[in-house]
Amino acid sequence: MRGIKLSGNDRDAALDRSLDPAFPLHRGGKIEVRPAVRIRDAEGLALAYTPGVARVSSAIAAEPELAYDYTWKANTVLVVTDGTAVLGLGDIGPVAALPVMEGKALLFKEFAGVDAVPICLDCTKTDDVIETIVRIAPAFGGVNLEDISAPRCFEIERRLQDRLDIPVFHDDQHGTAIVVLAALLNAAKVTGRKLADLRAVVSGAGAAGMAVTKMLVEAGIGEIAVADSKGIIHLSREDLTDSKFELAELTNQSDITGPIERALIGADVFIGVSAGTVPEAAVASMAPGAIVFALANPHPEVDPAMARKYAAVIATGRSDYPNQINNVLAFPGIFRGAMNVRASRITNGMQLAAAHALADAVGDRLARDHIIPSPFDERVAVNVAHAVADAARADGVARLH
Amino acid sequence: MRGIKLSGNDRDAALDRSLDPAFPLHRGGKIEVRPAVRIRDAEGLALAYTPGVARVSSAIAAEPELAYDYTWKANTVLVVTDGTAVLGLGDIGPVAALPVMEGKALLFKEFAGVDAVPICLDCTKTDDVIETIVRIAPAFGGVNLEDISAPRCFEIERRLQDRLDIPVFHDDQHGTAIVVLAALLNAAKVTGRKLADLRAVVSGAGAAGMAVTKMLVEAGIGEIAVADSKGIIHLSREDLTDSKFELAELTNQSDITGPIERALIGADVFIGVSAGTVPEAAVASMAPGAIVFALANPHPEVDPAMARKYAAVIATGRSDYPNQINNVLAFPGIFRGAMNVRASRITNGMQLAAAHALADAVGDRLARDHIIPSPFDERVAVNVAHAVADAARADGVARLH
Repeated sequence: MRGIKLSGNDRDAALDRSLDPAFPLHRGGKIEVRPAVRIRDAEGLALAYTPGVARVSSAIAAEPELAYDYTWKANTVLVVTDGTAVLGLGDIGPVAALPVMEGKALLFKEFAGVDAVPICLDCTKTDDVIETIVRIAPAFGGVNLEDISAPRCFEIERRLQDRLDIPVFHDDQHGTAIVVLAALLNAAKVTGRKLADLRAVVSGAGAAGMAVTKMLVEAGIGEIAVADSKGIIHLSREDLTDSKFELAELTNQSDITGPIERALIGADVFIGVSAGTVPEAAVASMAPGAIVFALANPHPEVDPAMARKYAAVIATGRSDYPNQINNVLAFPGIFRGAMNVRASRITNGMQLAAAHALADAVGDRLARDHIIPSPFDERVAVNVAHAVADAARADGVARLH
Repeated sequence: MRGIKLSGNDRDAALDRSLDPAFPLHRGGKIEVRPAVRIRDAEGLALAYTPGVARVSSAIAAEPELAYDYTWKANTVLVVTDGTAVLGLGDIGPVAALPVMEGKALLFKEFAGVDAVPICLDCTKTDDVIETIVRIAPAFGGVNLEDISAPRCFEIERRLQDRLDIPVFHDDQHGTAIVVLAALLNAAKVTGRKLADLRAVVSGAGAAGMAVTKMLVEAGIGEIAVADSKGIIHLSREDLTDSKFELAELTNQSDITGPIERALIGADVFIGVSAGTVPEAAVASMAPGAIVFALANPHPEVDPAMARKYAAVIATGRSDYPNQINNVLAFPGIFRGAMNVRASRITNGMQLAAAHALADAVGDRLARDHIIPSPFDERVAVNVAHAVADAARADGVARLH
């Protein structure tokens, strides 16, 4: 582009780009900032800008809550990353994370009418990330944390929520957990079971694994064990981080040890939120009517075609198979609901309500290959938003009623 | 709104709001984030979000410059304030500054197609403001500093520009200076003089006063003196801050001392960028054919009706008098031009070029009551952008040619 000679690899990359429809779609970015009011003449200019704007600013200075009425704050979410855990790509830095953040902002608007501003942070220390987000938060009605690596993401979310009076939500944790729970509720239903009947095994103890596990425990799953790359997490393992120790206390009541295959024998549910693979023999060893959620992208932990031989219900993270577990089913409606009632945080109750609303949105179309609605079903975000707003009121975190 | 009983003053304020058209215009905010691409189905979702977006992020991780092609960075400005010097209102804090920042973003888009993101900082220490802006800068193609108090704004701008490879521009300084210079070039022309013929007096040594003075010196004004609230700035004053000492070295070659009235005797030009007032006798003492720019808002330093008795050309900051000196004439075109060539900074040469382009945009409609074009003249931003881009290339700061 700037007259630099391309090496062979660069030429290949450029060729890939010219054949991949994702690149033309991304040209110039996927979002824009648009006027919400039209300024046609000097009179309009004098209202929207000086001197008229000074009267609005003065009013807000005297009564800060008026910012919710006379600025975009009430409808606007900060979508913020430090670029340390971008999709499955890892620590690719802030600028390379921007397309993902723009995508998020696009979906926030498209599916729930929420304005979202992508910010990519050029810092990674936990304290710096927290402090920077606190400093830029005043103009926002909510904070969506995105693609921040574990275990830093747990502390960052907790400390931010302590310091801010707007919802702070790490989508990679809770968005994933909400959609997984919704799908699992329906998978149990369609196979004639209840959540309390199921024994589940989670592969992956990162942001998503932690949140999925905690949420399933909260929702009343029968039994659950978690495995990381070293095997099943149990209390006597000596290599556990604080967050994994917390998991060990919460799970694996049967105290299974060893590789994940040990836990899968007779298990009803497999939930993969890692990059590992599960051998066919382990899938075959699961209980009859097994439920397999192989959510790693782009390569599911269990090949769906193979899983079909043993499992009753299969879900992946991919759009080219049935039952796509996609966060976009959750985050737009969750923030819509939370912001509609000016919630100060997103409670467990609001998250559980979102999962149930999402499960219910499938309605009478429920089937083994349709345990979760399409994101293009317009009722989804609306139903989730209503359930979340109701739960916010019930939990006493709503500032508008 | 939340059932709180209004006191008498609150009722008055609420009544004022109901009668002031600025408030309904601001309801819900003045800007929004919109998708720039439409996602209609699962296929579109798979390109704009996972898995397609991962390929774009990977490409940018390998070659960061591609962010200019495949994200909104190339067209997006960070509009950032710490709320310490908002319009004439002073230190009203970040949230109350938001309507001004939204107004700026609205005008960026309306007049130059630039996407602008308002960020209001909840910190005021110089180091904190700088560090925070550096950390959030990666996704932006430029930084517009706004309503940051002097003298902090000088150091903040300088140190930010040292650390970032995108333009950093404090509009209250340079935007104002550019429009003042453009208006003064035309005021001189319409009264048959040249800039070098003029002796000017600037009232105000804050952000705007500093920048206006430096720019007029740079552009070749004949003579110039500056006054602050303590009187004319001269080298023997012992109360000068670093930035005012710099001004003292640069100005007042005749070494005038005392109140501003002393400097105005026989002066050709008065430029008010303060909140003070100038007595009629002082205006009357100016040279024949005087030029009076009384830019304080909403109360000009010199009453325009009174000034008419003595001055040949009068300009204000108000939209209800002729010759409105309004920054909106400059900043949209300046960033448009700088970003079109991916300039790494905005040089003095680019600013001078902007002022000349702005002056020229009046064309053959030049008159004593029309020394500056209307912001609604569509040629303005285009002409300024072209001039700025050319100057960026000439100054060697353009990365695209």
